[in-house]
Amino acid sequence: MTKTRIRLSDLAAQLDLEVEGDPDVMLSGVASLDEAGPGDLTFVRDAAFAVRLRESQAGAVIALHGLDVAGRPALRSADPSRDFYRAARIFVPDSSPPAGIHGNAVVDAGASVDETACLGPGCFVGPGARVGPRTILHACATLYAGVEVGADCVLHAGVVVAAASVLGDRVTLAPGAVVGAEGFGYVGHEAGGLQRIHNVGRVVIEDDVDVGANSTIDRGTLGDTRIGRGTKIDNLVHIAHNCRIGEDVVIVAQAGIAGSTVVESRSVVMAQAGITGHLRIGPDAFVGPRAGVHKDVGEGRRVFGAPQRPELDWHREMAALSRLPGLLRRVRALERGARKEDESE
Amino acid sequence: MTKTRIRLSDLAAQLDLEVEGDPDVMLSGVASLDEAGPGDLTFVRDAAFAVRLRESQAGAVIALHGLDVAGRPALRSADPSRDFYRAARIFVPDSSPPAGIHGNAVVDAGASVDETACLGPGCFVGPGARVGPRTILHACATLYAGVEVGADCVLHAGVVVAAASVLGDRVTLAPGAVVGAEGFGYVGHEAGGLQRIHNVGRVVIEDDVDVGANSTIDRGTLGDTRIGRGTKIDNLVHIAHNCRIGEDVVIVAQAGIAGSTVVESRSVVMAQAGITGHLRIGPDAFVGPRAGVHKDVGEGRRVFGAPQRPELDWHREMAALSRLPGLLRRVRALERGARKEDESE
Amino acid sequence: MTKTRIRLSDLAAQLDLEVEGDPDVMLSGVASLDEAGPGDLTFVRDAAFAVRLRESQAGAVIALHGLDVAGRPALRSADPSRDFYRAARIFVPDSSPPAGIHGNAVVDAGASVDETACLGPGCFVGPGARVGPRTILHACATLYAGVEVGADCVLHAGVVVAAASVLGDRVTLAPGAVVGAEGFGYVGHEAGGLQRIHNVGRVVIEDDVDVGANSTIDRGTLGDTRIGRGTKIDNLVHIAHNCRIGEDVVIVAQAGIAGSTVVESRSVVMAQAGITGHLRIGPDAFVGPRAGVHKDVGEGRRVFGAPQRPELDWHREMAALSRLPGLLRRVRALERGARKEDESE
Repeated sequence: MTKTRIRLSDLAAQLDLEVEGDPDVMLSGVASLDEAGPGDLTFVRDAAFAVRLRESQAGAVIALHGLDVAGRPALRSADPSRDFYRAARIFVPDSSPPAGIHGNAVVDAGASVDETACLGPGCFVGPGARVGPRTILHACATLYAGVEVGADCVLHAGVVVAAASVLGDRVTLAPGAVVGAEGFGYVGHEAGGLQRIHNVGRVVIEDDVDVGANSTIDRGTLGDTRIGRGTKIDNLVHIAHNCRIGEDVVIVAQAGIAGSTVVESRSVVMAQAGITGHLRIGPDAFVGPRAGVHKDVGEGRRVFGAPQRPELDWHREMAALSRLPGLLRRVRALERGARKEDESE
Repeated sequence: MTKTRIRLSDLAAQLDLEVEGDPDVMLSGVASLDEAGPGDLTFVRDAAFAVRLRESQAGAVIALHGLDVAGRPALRSADPSRDFYRAARIFVPDSSPPAGIHGNAVVDAGASVDETACLGPGCFVGPGARVGPRTILHACATLYAGVEVGADCVLHAGVVVAAASVLGDRVTLAPGAVVGAEGFGYVGHEAGGLQRIHNVGRVVIEDDVDVGANSTIDRGTLGDTRIGRGTKIDNLVHIAHNCRIGEDVVIVAQAGIAGSTVVESRSVVMAQAGITGHLRIGPDAFVGPRAGVHKDVGEGRRVFGAPQRPELDWHREMAALSRLPGLLRRVRALERGARKEDESE
Repeated sequence: MTKTRIRLSDLAAQLDLEVEGDPDVMLSGVASLDEAGPGDLTFVRDAAFAVRLRESQAGAVIALHGLDVAGRPALRSADPSRDFYRAARIFVPDSSPPAGIHGNAVVDAGASVDETACLGPGCFVGPGARVGPRTILHACATLYAGVEVGADCVLHAGVVVAAASVLGDRVTLAPGAVVGAEGFGYVGHEAGGLQRIHNVGRVVIEDDVDVGANSTIDRGTLGDTRIGRGTKIDNLVHIAHNCRIGEDVVIVAQAGIAGSTVVESRSVVMAQAGITGHLRIGPDAFVGPRAGVHKDVGEGRRVFGAPQRPELDWHREMAALSRLPGLLRRVRALERGARKEDESE
């Protein structure tokens, strides 16, 4: 892939930052202090890193105002980390499919795709589905009938959105994410065996939500499954039917949340945790990694372990557990002592 | 999406139920008591819910015979829940791709697709593969060479079936499910490193099985991996090579079963549980959520925890664990007492 | 699917093995001793199995030199298991899409695909992407812009490779695997909520790596996520941004490794284990099934449980835990005895 090459002074103009030193140095990438070469931009935000800058091969640096950069070409910034990632976006832009609707994409006659949207090859937009302005569907993304996707969304390759689900604006679905599959709800069949409940609910995803690769969010049975504004979901997460996830919730990889559970705003569910159905978590709660939650978690509470315990209790119990084999021996010794007592009576 | 609108009397005729009150009320959806609006049908199955019906905005209700519906238009039913979901199927039918074989689907010359089957855009049916009557393949579903799919199956978007696997009738594969990937079996390589065993087994899925979104079922090494009739598998479940799962087994989200394990009929494996390879579980066994099973589980037994214990033992141990930090202090107190005894001797 | 039929003498020639007995027996498959029919080849590697050969219906057998095969047609081998799987490869070859670039595949004008590569229908090779000699992309595999895939790779249906990631030679990605999705890294937003860090890193996968079905490997934030030569990854595994996995590492199903963790060569991470970010594991370490690792694991160390403990400690603690309810009673008895002592003073 051809790399973007850009002059430091031009970069400064784009980022609205001040140049210090040679404005004509040419840059073609971004890198950390240790990995940067002469064509790379790097950044330093405090004096500790400024020392390591001397050994760096970086062609230029974004540095906090006042930090010594030993003469290296620099852009001065009040927030070097933020401005560095702004620069990164220029050097390594996000990958997009070709603009417009690819000839190999299929849009149902009854669907509506905004003229500024971008559909990769192999996409399918089903009957009655809608795709908003500037939204990107990568290759083989599939929207079932009646799905609505807002503006500025990115649906990566192989994503599936079913069940007439509704996505707000700036929603990102990573490759392979599945939104709106049937919930795992069955009733006993008269003839024996299990019969799936016919689901009519949707998944509603509000603005600024990210869903990770190969994660799954099931549609509601009657009402909707709902993911609140700003919530971020990592890879391989499972969210069952009729869950209601609040705003700015963070759910880390491989966590699972069973049906109809409510996770309130700003709560964090760590990796590989599991939450039983019909519970209420948070707001501002913290479910530790690998925790197994089977009871409600109150506002701001932190739980760990499986079954769940308050954080401090869990640390105490785990520390005590490591002393348990020794404790068994100590109690045996006490019992022998007691028996001697008895015998001597 | 245009909503279905239907007159109560017509709905009654379709469901073969009796109307009570205004037969001409127009309905366009189904909803729970609390969420229903004037265009919605709801249901009540007992007196407790009948009270809440007064506050409901529902346009009509499916109610148990004899329940007071306070004059609201009603359909009388012996099983309101079941008939409600029958009605739901009319208002919100399952989404299907356009009938027939979509122009953008690819069917190998040596494949055979029943004329009543329905293939969405981007599907691929490989050499020698067979698709039965009324079976639906949604967009980008892929059947490798030699795969056989029975009648009335639904393979959702992005599904992959490989390894000449065989699906019975009425099998549902949710989006992203992968059936027939290579098993995770290796032998040491003469030159060092690991070499994959060449797999020749298939996956055989019997009638009425559901497989959840992004779940994976690996092909057998020599013999087949087998999923028995009526078994229901949730999302993100992993079933390894040569497992044999019985009939009417339930496997909940994110559970994993290692190679060659047998899970007998009507057993339940709860969410995030893990079962080691070469074990035998059930029949009618229950593996609790997050359990780690490394030994056989007998018929009808219930195990919890990791490593697994009988249900009652596990509850006792977890309760005892919460008292362990206190126990350490109590034993220390006893030891101090005993030492005093010793000193006073 | 038409089955391959092959004469025993021809098979012997292909495998370079010696025939014993009727060289004209026709074979059409491979099977285990118990499942083999008259058209099947089976194998025996020691005397224990040779006894069971008498009851087998197998048409022919690959047997260790000198083992009694009771007159059955045989191929003599120094390593019957290895030669059996070599034969299996002849009877049940791996499934491939049609040779060449399928008419329904899309190759960007700026991409480069080796003329010996094989692309199934619905594949997309993005701008600047490269596909090496003899590499196979099954249906609907997607390569984003700038991705590089070496020689003799197999990318199964529905695979997605993004972020200009680089795959070596003989890499296998099972169906639905996602390589190069965005990492789960956010910074607080000035206006509240979370903003994703713009990632510029790639995933680099070295030679002879296998990645399982629906597994996910995220791209690096600044530097790359790296999977070392010969490493084997099972299904539904999650590897986060900037992890560095060594050579010949084995990572079993549903395990998860958080950001920037290093797993050194020849380590094994068992199923459903979880490893926190920024740790160092191994080399030659063993992380037990369902272990929760939150601290470094030294070279060759074996850890179990969550939180992690050395193997022996864990076994002791789990055994002790089962005695804890009894221990509580014993301590109570001691306390009663001590109190009696006190009272008698």
